[in-house]
Amino acid sequence: MQKISQEAITHFQSIVGDKNVRQSPNDLEHMGKDWSTVPNPRPSVILLPSCTKEVSEILRYCNEQAIKVVPSGGRTGLVGGAMAVNGEVVLSLQRMNKIIAIDSIGMFTSVEAGVNTQALQLAAKEHGVMFGLDLGSAGSSLIGGNISTNAAGKKFIRNGGMRQQVLGLEVVLADGRVLNLKGSLRKDNTGYALEELFIGAEGTLGIITKATLRLQPLPAQTTTLCCVTDTFQKVLRTLELCHLKGLQVNTFEFFSRSSYEAVRRLKELKPLFDGNCYMLIVLEGGNQERIDAVVEQMFSDELVSDGLIAQSPEERLNLWTYRDMIVEAVGVYKVFKRTDVSLPIPRMGEYLNELMQRFASRPPSIDIIAYGHVGDGNFHIDYISNNPADRDKIIAMEREQHELVSTYNGSISAEHGIGLLKKPYLNLTRSEEEINLMRNIKQLLDPVGILNPGKIFDL
Amino acid sequence: MQKISQEAITHFQSIVGDKNVRQSPNDLEHMGKDWSTVPNPRPSVILLPSCTKEVSEILRYCNEQAIKVVPSGGRTGLVGGAMAVNGEVVLSLQRMNKIIAIDSIGMFTSVEAGVNTQALQLAAKEHGVMFGLDLGSAGSSLIGGNISTNAAGKKFIRNGGMRQQVLGLEVVLADGRVLNLKGSLRKDNTGYALEELFIGAEGTLGIITKATLRLQPLPAQTTTLCCVTDTFQKVLRTLELCHLKGLQVNTFEFFSRSSYEAVRRLKELKPLFDGNCYMLIVLEGGNQERIDAVVEQMFSDELVSDGLIAQSPEERLNLWTYRDMIVEAVGVYKVFKRTDVSLPIPRMGEYLNELMQRFASRPPSIDIIAYGHVGDGNFHIDYISNNPADRDKIIAMEREQHELVSTYNGSISAEHGIGLLKKPYLNLTRSEEEINLMRNIKQLLDPVGILNPGKIFDL
Repeated sequence: MQKISQEAITHFQSIVGDKNVRQSPNDLEHMGKDWSTVPNPRPSVILLPSCTKEVSEILRYCNEQAIKVVPSGGRTGLVGGAMAVNGEVVLSLQRMNKIIAIDSIGMFTSVEAGVNTQALQLAAKEHGVMFGLDLGSAGSSLIGGNISTNAAGKKFIRNGGMRQQVLGLEVVLADGRVLNLKGSLRKDNTGYALEELFIGAEGTLGIITKATLRLQPLPAQTTTLCCVTDTFQKVLRTLELCHLKGLQVNTFEFFSRSSYEAVRRLKELKPLFDGNCYMLIVLEGGNQERIDAVVEQMFSDELVSDGLIAQSPEERLNLWTYRDMIVEAVGVYKVFKRTDVSLPIPRMGEYLNELMQRFASRPPSIDIIAYGHVGDGNFHIDYISNNPADRDKIIAMEREQHELVSTYNGSISAEHGIGLLKKPYLNLTRSEEEINLMRNIKQLLDPVGILNPGKIFDL
Repeated sequence: MQKISQEAITHFQSIVGDKNVRQSPNDLEHMGKDWSTVPNPRPSVILLPSCTKEVSEILRYCNEQAIKVVPSGGRTGLVGGAMAVNGEVVLSLQRMNKIIAIDSIGMFTSVEAGVNTQALQLAAKEHGVMFGLDLGSAGSSLIGGNISTNAAGKKFIRNGGMRQQVLGLEVVLADGRVLNLKGSLRKDNTGYALEELFIGAEGTLGIITKATLRLQPLPAQTTTLCCVTDTFQKVLRTLELCHLKGLQVNTFEFFSRSSYEAVRRLKELKPLFDGNCYMLIVLEGGNQERIDAVVEQMFSDELVSDGLIAQSPEERLNLWTYRDMIVEAVGVYKVFKRTDVSLPIPRMGEYLNELMQRFASRPPSIDIIAYGHVGDGNFHIDYISNNPADRDKIIAMEREQHELVSTYNGSISAEHGIGLLKKPYLNLTRSEEEINLMRNIKQLLDPVGILNPGKIFDL
């Protein structure tokens, strides 16, 4: 447990002002934790700087004094990456929430790290353009955190994740030095892409204070289709048909029969259609005829057995409910474990089948909820039970699932990151050489080890 | 000048076979140079491995013996990044040219580093999909070199550059260890994005032996428009109009009146229309009405004064001739200097105007040819003269141009890289901290300093 001296508190007050140094039990509890299941947030103080200079001064001092710091955004992470559990200083970027520019010539926005995701989406729309990232947590998450976790979300298949949105970054290093990397430039082939190191580094290499992000034209008309089929192989062949017919696939979501049933148990929804594998597909393109022809072929090739095209915005929202409610439907169980794995897309069905076979003789009280983003190779496979005695069994199933992922050349974390919760599995899909190289890079950029200690890997 | 012992040659022969160790003057001359103007290729031996294992054995030995190595692809670079000028071993990947997989479910291709760009484009097309990168040098450049230089090309505004195509890499480190980074995964948030370090590193951090690359659906119908206007500000406003109307801009090329005239001097082409700023725009979208309406508005808003929409594939090719021939038209002059700078897109016009004002009183024998990719913020500004006495003046102009770029927060190399030729300018747009961090990363990955020595920066 790190203890912070009164001298340090006084110094922090001189940098950010008294009222931006917080130590009330409420603040410590609230600002020291994220949306993960990691218990016992125990930060020693919360700092709320207003500008890059203040962040730089805080870090310079902390580095000199070897004071450990947890950077903090909207704290919506699910793996404990923003948890302060050992008396760390929490450095929150939430007051740095200015949208500095939205430029429809260069198609970029410059923002401070504390800008809210949804606020940026709305501001871009008001300027007649689009910010291409959307997340379930858009109302709470902040841009700096999205970058530090390389957030993905609903439009990944079309727009990529946060890495693909970032043009340039302003980063404060552990010793307080400020790097301005790439600004709004689209092209800059002048040596190593240092900015890429900080994306997805979970705040362990530097603190992102500003970013320049790509914008896009508002999308043309879209078609939303919900349909069902009997095998996952046909899900993949439906995806392939869209690709080969030259359609722009905006979303290609999958959910299993058990997911559909879990949502219907939670919420009174009218039944859709019956089957094993549900797909929610959003197709884009000005030419409706091409899209209609492809949807027809899905049926005539017997890739899908039943389906529905949304005829209105309300119907579209209604179809999304079956997908969007899964997260909540899982959370109501006494025991639940969420996973987030990535696979080579063509092998997703094979993996899912092998996993279900392995777990066929599990206790009947444990249900398996499989869903995810097929076009991204990303499964969420969640384990639920109302019997507390199943807890250890479910923990063992999670490990077995991750071990299986490694034999498929997959990843134990597609979009959630590593944080604290996934550290035990990191070496299943990253080699010892890779992890050592990460450690070397960490030591290069943060030799004293003050930045988000204990996250991703232990030194 | 590095000298290679007979013992080393014998060892190399034992790894790759006698006929893949080449020392004829022809081979040394041909394989030791690239398309840059750097003179005097002087490698000591050319090695042609056939697989990753051989690359690994070569590097392990070279690292032990401190033998310096220049990695070599299609050698189409323009800044000397593939030049072997000090007796280095040239390690050519050209025999490693297998397309391992093309997958239209996962929309990726796995290739060895020596696959030719055009060969991959054609193979993808045969499978009903598209490889999204296209370059003037596609017939000669190899994928590994494209990745090592983060090549950009004609479709950058739509698809991004090579960095955006790469899903995963196999890399051989300086000491012969092999890293397999990310494979075909779309998502993998498990620590630092090590693969990003090797993209654009010009072979100084490791040797790329395999890659998994993104594929895309074949594009829908496109509209190609060539038009003209009087000021660069109107060029930018035309681009903005396309963005705000929700059009997918595939290409947005600019060339100045002087470029147009240089091409017409070189080649008998029928005159287009008269003006200061030419635009070649490719718009995509199934809905022709929307595109037509935007083109009409370009005229009614007086953003463009004259123009032509290609009505056939022949007309399209013909319009492209005016843009594509510029590179050749510059090359016929006794003295020429090509540049490649990147700017914040909204400030491109301001920069060009300031540059032209600064050079207004240049000798009349020097002409300035400005062209480039507006949607990418990328100008090529080339200086030509038939008077050899202008050489020093032109070199001074290049430096002045780069100094001006730095005051605009631009980059002295948009897509060509640094290699040998641009080293003197690197510190104009990268800070001392950034360059030192690059040096540290280099020392971490290549402590003996055997990989492409002297490129990008000096140690």
